Amino acid sequence: MSRATQTTGTLVLVPNALDFGASELGDLTAALPLPVLQRAATIAHWVVEDAKSARAFLRRVAAVAPLRLPIQQLDIQELPRADKSAERAAAKATVSTAEIHLLLAPARNGADVALLTEAGLPAVADPGAALVREAHTLGLRVEPLPGPSALMLALAASGLNGQQFAFVGYLPVNAEERAHRIRELETQSRRAHQTQIAIETPYRNPAILKALVDHLQPATRLAVACALTWPQGWCRTQSVKAWRTSELAIDNRLPAVYLWLAA
Amino acid sequence: MSRATQTTGTLVLVPNALDFGASELGDLTAALPLPVLQRAATIAHWVVEDAKSARAFLRRVAAVAPLRLPIQQLDIQELPRADKSAERAAAKATVSTAEIHLLLAPARNGADVALLTEAGLPAVADPGAALVREAHTLGLRVEPLPGPSALMLALAASGLNGQQFAFVGYLPVNAEERAHRIRELETQSRRAHQTQIAIETPYRNPAILKALVDHLQPATRLAVACALTWPQGWCRTQSVKAWRTSELAIDNRLPAVYLWLAA
Repeated sequence: MSRATQTTGTLVLVPNALDFGASELGDLTAALPLPVLQRAATIAHWVVEDAKSARAFLRRVAAVAPLRLPIQQLDIQELPRADKSAERAAAKATVSTAEIHLLLAPARNGADVALLTEAGLPAVADPGAALVREAHTLGLRVEPLPGPSALMLALAASGLNGQQFAFVGYLPVNAEERAHRIRELETQSRRAHQTQIAIETPYRNPAILKALVDHLQPATRLAVACALTWPQGWCRTQSVKAWRTSELAIDNRLPAVYLWLAA
Repeated sequence: MSRATQTTGTLVLVPNALDFGASELGDLTAALPLPVLQRAATIAHWVVEDAKSARAFLRRVAAVAPLRLPIQQLDIQELPRADKSAERAAAKATVSTAEIHLLLAPARNGADVALLTEAGLPAVADPGAALVREAHTLGLRVEPLPGPSALMLALAASGLNGQQFAFVGYLPVNAEERAHRIRELETQSRRAHQTQIAIETPYRNPAILKALVDHLQPATRLAVACALTWPQGWCRTQSVKAWRTSELAIDNRLPAVYLWLAA
């Protein structure tokens, strides 16, 4: 089924836990299947979002499965960083193909290469898609190992429509543009009966929740899923009207996912 | 953080493996974290998509964690079946609130209730959202346990845009309507640089792949992710132009996810 020949390696998409390494001593097997960690432990070549946190992840892996090589001897390369403003605008990756080719060189030579990001699945609301794209172009096998996605846990927990949904990334930082975007997405939600899913950096949690509550229609159902899989995690879904009379307390250090569905 | 009082139970969203029970004797810990299965094993009340396959799942759980009660003594209730044509049209659930209330009665009395579907996460491209919705209305705690989503594994493996994407469910069965819908979604993909994600029942795999290849623009990138996490799983991404000259062999017994991104 694969187009790879026996002499090419596999690009292995390694899921991370959803706690951003917050509990470095915590057991990774709470979030990830043991065979996933055992497979990860066999890989010598790593392409990662951040080398420091990747080493922390690998220390957690080593606690449950012996690594093929000591961490210091693993080949750990960082993904070229896309311009942050380009990321927010969901612009196409500006990373050069030559850089990506170099990162995939071990796989072209028959070894497995792991792709790992800070939390959850690589290339989903996270960098890495340019690497996966190039792997397909080169005819490498791409194998995603099973692990959780914070977006999908939030969607399941929200009780909003899981048959039609859109992930829209970050909302604009500028208040006026953000209000316009929120109304535009609400119209889209109403027209297609489509749940809208957005994320934000934790320190903007209070601002985005206030903006959603201010600019969505009263009958729209709004869900906040905060730190799911963490001990302090919670998810709450209610009408915007009810949110307007609720305490809007949301921690500005915890990751949150916002979801809404127009009535 | 939860609105639940100490006397109400939790609606626990239990992930399933992605193999639709195909390997009933296979080890569930390959796809799901052991603590998730251990937690599932403690729950006496189950609301499930299909009772027979739920019992098969519970037999697999019992192989790794002792169940609180023998399977025959567990309270296993099926979700009311929504009209299949309504599901395809992504119509709102027609299940009565009274039925849902009854299913949640054990949680209102302090016990945990598990929600389980045929594969992956409940209420994501699967039934269950009406139950979760009502749990929020009743002020019950909703706790999603971490597990994989076939849609997100497919998205990660595709290398298509993971910063903006939409899940559009099933495409129309009627050929003319399907062609129209495919072109409409391609326009939306181009405008928003948004990956479109669709699913189909396995026996229609060859028909839908042909329709996508026929009606999408040559430069659009099309991914097929088939049976991910299964031993025979694969994912292939290439331009529609390249698909047109490829063998279009796709098994009509395996689950597949279709993803495309306009150039």
